[in-house]
Amino acid sequence: MDGRFAVGSDFFPKAGYDYQLVLTRILEYAARIRPRDEIVYRNLYRGNYARLYERCRRLSKALVTLGVGRHTRVTVFEWNTHRFLELYFAVPCMGAILHLGNPLLAPDQIAYAINHAEAEVLILNRDFIPLIQAISGKLQTVRQYVVMADDGRVPETNLRPVAEYEELLGSATADYDYPELDENTVATICYTTGTTGDPKGAYFTHRQAVLHTLTWANFFQGFLGERGIDPRRDFFIHLVPMFHAHSWGIPYIATYLCTKQVYPGRFDPKVFLELVKTEKRPGQRAYAASVATMLNAICYHPEVDHYREYLKGVTYVVGGTALPKGLASKARELGMEAVAGWGMTETFPVVGVSFLKPHMFDWPEEKKLDFLVRTGVPFPLVEQRVVDSGGRDVPKDGKTYGEIVLRAPWLTGGYVKEPEKSKELWRGGWLHTGDIATIDEEDSLLIVDRDKDVIKSGGEWISTLILEDILSMHSKVQEVAVIAARSERWGERPIAVVVPKKEFRDGISEDELKEYMKEHVETGRILKWWIPEKFLFVDEIPKTSTGKFNKKVLRPLYWDVLEK
Amino acid sequence: MDGRFAVGSDFFPKAGYDYQLVLTRILEYAARIRPRDEIVYRNLYRGNYARLYERCRRLSKALVTLGVGRHTRVTVFEWNTHRFLELYFAVPCMGAILHLGNPLLAPDQIAYAINHAEAEVLILNRDFIPLIQAISGKLQTVRQYVVMADDGRVPETNLRPVAEYEELLGSATADYDYPELDENTVATICYTTGTTGDPKGAYFTHRQAVLHTLTWANFFQGFLGERGIDPRRDFFIHLVPMFHAHSWGIPYIATYLCTKQVYPGRFDPKVFLELVKTEKRPGQRAYAASVATMLNAICYHPEVDHYREYLKGVTYVVGGTALPKGLASKARELGMEAVAGWGMTETFPVVGVSFLKPHMFDWPEEKKLDFLVRTGVPFPLVEQRVVDSGGRDVPKDGKTYGEIVLRAPWLTGGYVKEPEKSKELWRGGWLHTGDIATIDEEDSLLIVDRDKDVIKSGGEWISTLILEDILSMHSKVQEVAVIAARSERWGERPIAVVVPKKEFRDGISEDELKEYMKEHVETGRILKWWIPEKFLFVDEIPKTSTGKFNKKVLRPLYWDVLEK
Repeated sequence: MDGRFAVGSDFFPKAGYDYQLVLTRILEYAARIRPRDEIVYRNLYRGNYARLYERCRRLSKALVTLGVGRHTRVTVFEWNTHRFLELYFAVPCMGAILHLGNPLLAPDQIAYAINHAEAEVLILNRDFIPLIQAISGKLQTVRQYVVMADDGRVPETNLRPVAEYEELLGSATADYDYPELDENTVATICYTTGTTGDPKGAYFTHRQAVLHTLTWANFFQGFLGERGIDPRRDFFIHLVPMFHAHSWGIPYIATYLCTKQVYPGRFDPKVFLELVKTEKRPGQRAYAASVATMLNAICYHPEVDHYREYLKGVTYVVGGTALPKGLASKARELGMEAVAGWGMTETFPVVGVSFLKPHMFDWPEEKKLDFLVRTGVPFPLVEQRVVDSGGRDVPKDGKTYGEIVLRAPWLTGGYVKEPEKSKELWRGGWLHTGDIATIDEEDSLLIVDRDKDVIKSGGEWISTLILEDILSMHSKVQEVAVIAARSERWGERPIAVVVPKKEFRDGISEDELKEYMKEHVETGRILKWWIPEKFLFVDEIPKTSTGKFNKKVLRPLYWDVLEK
Repeated sequence: MDGRFAVGSDFFPKAGYDYQLVLTRILEYAARIRPRDEIVYRNLYRGNYARLYERCRRLSKALVTLGVGRHTRVTVFEWNTHRFLELYFAVPCMGAILHLGNPLLAPDQIAYAINHAEAEVLILNRDFIPLIQAISGKLQTVRQYVVMADDGRVPETNLRPVAEYEELLGSATADYDYPELDENTVATICYTTGTTGDPKGAYFTHRQAVLHTLTWANFFQGFLGERGIDPRRDFFIHLVPMFHAHSWGIPYIATYLCTKQVYPGRFDPKVFLELVKTEKRPGQRAYAASVATMLNAICYHPEVDHYREYLKGVTYVVGGTALPKGLASKARELGMEAVAGWGMTETFPVVGVSFLKPHMFDWPEEKKLDFLVRTGVPFPLVEQRVVDSGGRDVPKDGKTYGEIVLRAPWLTGGYVKEPEKSKELWRGGWLHTGDIATIDEEDSLLIVDRDKDVIKSGGEWISTLILEDILSMHSKVQEVAVIAARSERWGERPIAVVVPKKEFRDGISEDELKEYMKEHVETGRILKWWIPEKFLFVDEIPKTSTGKFNKKVLRPLYWDVLEK
């Protein structure tokens, strides 16, 4: 269509090198320009970028001897270690595909994902040997295991054939040269459980990984918290499990920026506190990210007060779940700052972060905090809309609900071997997140529910998250899940499944909770018809592997409770 | 080749939106997310990103009525104003091509470039009317002129047909929707004079513009000077002429980061000082860039002492020419910090900046400064080599000379309608910069000469820049150019063309300069055989439009001076 004026025409002759956006360029740059900057794993490993590159080359060379070639799927089960960082680069840069194995899925789902990805090599931390041994009989494509252990020792196992990671590296030379790859080569696969059915494998190319890195780095440097990261002075401490959504892309941006990186292994709030104490020098800042529950475990750790002086200067991004305002305040009281970020496995994951715009700097502290715990403002290059069921933009009034749909240079193109689900995800040319949110005039989102969790009552949406938030603050309530029940008249109506605090097991009533809810109708936080139709008192609420309420299990249990 | 595992295969079905890296996304993001942040032109215009977007849409709509469509070349001659920023976006985002007209070229070269680009519309500041009128008879493709004037008045002119810029904007509505473009659509053309022959038009695509922006922004935020730019608080003040190499890409990164932008119009050191005074609030930092001569004009401005309190917190990137250490010290004494950056028209332009790596923070101040005035360290994604004439890497010893060759995602693919010169630029798959440099173990470059200026004597290279640097420090020398003269025995030998200071016109001799040079042989800065064979004393040295010595004119004049 460009005809005479296309690149490569007589008018615009093309002689230039066709530069590809591949992860190899990021790895090589760090090794060449900042070889001395540190990569630390607990007190067990102190390396740097020169060593990272050397170990990656050995690893790739060794993987070739194990038959790993272009597009070979390599599944990894590992905690947050320098070894996983090596695998984050060594596997994709050699043209193979890194499948991030999620050990928190049910064993059958784990086996499903490995078979579905047709992984040939499985590299696992020693801690996961029992898990993998239990399903190894079901694995149809794996033909080689590699075990990683901090002390280099492989315990007795029936996984066959099996190699040891450090031994493998030791057996190879570091003269491996990474191949030139097309930027649209698939680099990684992350399986996500979604709300129903088998896990789905979102895949990502080198180009997507690089563009997520560049843009997210811009945000980390310029917009995050009081002061963005200074890649020459500050460092990252990696808390998001590296088997979840590329650890939110932070291992890649840390390497791109050549900052010091600290890996804490399996999450343990005490280890985090100790690492902040031992690694952070005066005036330096540390940057971390995780779901709210991890920050909660840090902030309420019994010994946290001993670490106050070190926590000053820690910036913490909370995502995956909402950032409760109480938690953000607690973090601030400890000298940290917490901001919200958001995304999902299908979006690499990060697409937005909450940050203050210049005209907000003079706002009262309380108002600033209210803005910072919102879901967030999109990154540059992210096109974000909130649409009604007809695909029309909802007003930016902070009130009207709609689904968030997205475009960005790093969103998955679809799911492995699932053309129909891929099309469903991308209907109308926009990635449908399934997140229900309001949007305000600042383009700041507030996610109020997951699509599958929201209740459609009389044609209007009711947010279960808001109802749960209010009920969880009642003095007799320990835990509460709000779900939909069938209603002849309204389609759906909300009901509340409540675990009372121990001491109130026999002293709590539906009436008092309804009265309590009415107070919140008066303050305007909810509407009268949002009050749950029924309150059920139970001993326990079933949960998913990631600690969220398992509404898939709850819903059918109580679907007919209003109409029978 | 990817077969079963290509994106779009059964294994990796593709349903995702094919996101293109185009400048439109940058413009729209700033308008949507940071509409209030300011864009200022002297004391003549105070707008913001919302207004930028609105004016761009009006402009594009008006350009459509003038017949501008896909790929139409639009030439612009303008100072650094908000209007030029509008044209930086409005023209490429509508799918047309922005030709940055350089008013400092010779009139015949200007006419050549416009004709060669086959520009159809010429948009010019009123100040350039005499220049363009003088060549308008030679312009073969221009069919429409648009005049820009601060007061909106077009003087009497024989340019026909002619429109006025603000009137044009006023006549159009802002409901123009930018088209979806392929990222490989050509966005801009910059003609460069090089060392010989007609100007050559380096062209750049949207993808290249976006990738230069993202990476350069990472550097500006994270690595530059004492503290990188905080896009929420700090601002850019644009000094590099916008008709030179995209003003080093800074208008694009400023918009991408949504920072406040200050445009000073035509360069005037007093205007710069006044704008820093009126626009910079306490605690805020300002970032500027230019060639050394402009920083020189600022630092030695007679009134500079009155502005000391405002200059504190100004970070200044010097490129295009070397950053003299004396000038960097002077800037520092005034409270500013100056660092070196480098690139060339063909490289968009920026590919490297000098910055301190973490292990250098404890170096003595003098040693730090020595490092910061070096040419620079490459950006992420830039592959940089220094090679000998056989294409082999020279050792990283800081001594051995070689040519800098590059790969990066934003280097020009070639020259407009010049397939042979394009291939020559990119021989062997690397962009040949023509810059002769040494490289040290930190991957830091020091450019010692242009390829065409370096002297090849007995098979060895002699740096004219170093010889000129030393001679210019002699107490009787005002200006000196060193060039090659033909030598039967050595091929070439250096000779020095010297303008003595007025008071020494009759009191300077070749012998004393040779004696003086010998002192520098003793300190090891130069080798004995580098001492110029002959010293010629003249009243004036011819210069190019950009103020550099015109060695193209000098060389033939003295080529035979040693052998006749």
